[in-house]
Amino acid sequence: MGGVPAVSIAISEIFGPTIQGEGALIGVPTVFVRTGGCDFRCSWCDTLYAVEPRFKADWQPMAASAILAEVNRLSGGAPLLVTLSGGNPALQPLDALLALGHQQGHTFAMETQGSKAQPWFRMLDHLTLSPKPPSSGMAFNRERFEACLAAAGADTQVSLKLVIADEADYRWARALADDYPQLPLYLQPCNPAPATPEQPERETDTQELNARLRWLVDKVTGDRWYRARVLPQLHVLIWNNERGV
Amino acid sequence: MGGVPAVSIAISEIFGPTIQGEGALIGVPTVFVRTGGCDFRCSWCDTLYAVEPRFKADWQPMAASAILAEVNRLSGGAPLLVTLSGGNPALQPLDALLALGHQQGHTFAMETQGSKAQPWFRMLDHLTLSPKPPSSGMAFNRERFEACLAAAGADTQVSLKLVIADEADYRWARALADDYPQLPLYLQPCNPAPATPEQPERETDTQELNARLRWLVDKVTGDRWYRARVLPQLHVLIWNNERGV
Repeated sequence: MGGVPAVSIAISEIFGPTIQGEGALIGVPTVFVRTGGCDFRCSWCDTLYAVEPRFKADWQPMAASAILAEVNRLSGGAPLLVTLSGGNPALQPLDALLALGHQQGHTFAMETQGSKAQPWFRMLDHLTLSPKPPSSGMAFNRERFEACLAAAGADTQVSLKLVIADEADYRWARALADDYPQLPLYLQPCNPAPATPEQPERETDTQELNARLRWLVDKVTGDRWYRARVLPQLHVLIWNNERGV
Repeated sequence: MGGVPAVSIAISEIFGPTIQGEGALIGVPTVFVRTGGCDFRCSWCDTLYAVEPRFKADWQPMAASAILAEVNRLSGGAPLLVTLSGGNPALQPLDALLALGHQQGHTFAMETQGSKAQPWFRMLDHLTLSPKPPSSGMAFNRERFEACLAAAGADTQVSLKLVIADEADYRWARALADDYPQLPLYLQPCNPAPATPEQPERETDTQELNARLRWLVDKVTGDRWYRARVLPQLHVLIWNNERGV
């Protein structure tokens, strides 16, 4: 493609405005910018279309200015929270996007598993670090995680969001969170049956999701782990795994 | 009752720990202290058992120390967030409870409609002001609301939480929120069929609640009202109106 600029970002989708469905900014109106490509392959990944190389042809290389033009079109030109997600957005060169977006009045939140630090993390307004628990099948690399923490700036709000699928994940989360008492902590029950590229319209079993949430609340309160904030994926509860909301 | 101390607080129920289901502190583990008695009678009130005088006999007059003893029993002795709710907790003399609770390491959040200010508001860690919209049948008194705002201290986090049942409520909320741009803003869809003392086990129509939430998200994003954070009553979605969670 001749028109692609030298520095481009692999984009899986840009959608919104909708509300952020999880974590520290739950309920905040936002446009999502989802990058394509990931260094992980979690067993329960709910965005395989932005992860697996077989979808690479669907990822559009876009310049920062083109991404922001789309964000502004969706937002009606008004500044808002832009949520950078993936895949792993930390694999992309996002510094120009952050600089230009801030000039236009936008704020930026990013979620990453904490496997790759980038100097531009300090330009983020909010950084959610979400290292993956044992049930994901992925290994935790403490050194890389701490490099991500160190890369966040003094004005970047950092929070820790841990997905919990089972008892082993829960024990892992307790031990990990204890090592980072300074970080606001969010626990999120795992969605056991996320939509997949093959079943994009898959209906959520909300009874099952609610049961998992109640289980997690009981664990946390039973263990007097009052620092842990427990939140569901609200978008899954209210939009049933649908894409683009 | 001979044993009742001179300064006592009318208590409808003390329960938890569970998670806060709504507003700024959604997901935070907390013990709820619900006071009995209210100066309002909202059309869709979901806690009539703490509001209507006919339930007065169920409200226990308790001293601050007795309330904290029960909080500590429930929390297993560990300090946590205590949520003061009602009824209207601002009608009660809560200064001794706040002073003693802080000594024990607890933090305090309170929700009130903003109809009565108290000098002890400055002792609260978090104050949610939730003036009632037109659909409640109650009138908004700006002077009293602003007295509540003024009563909060410099270290009290104040947020504005507005319940929205319909278009008229939404328009009212927009106008009101515009007058207080400094306040973090939370919009909450109204639960059209809350449990009542007569139907305490009433099942929630979660489809209807989700539809109301989606409607509110669409309104907010359609109007580019990006300051407004939209959140459901999570406890209603996951525990179906049940009491004591």
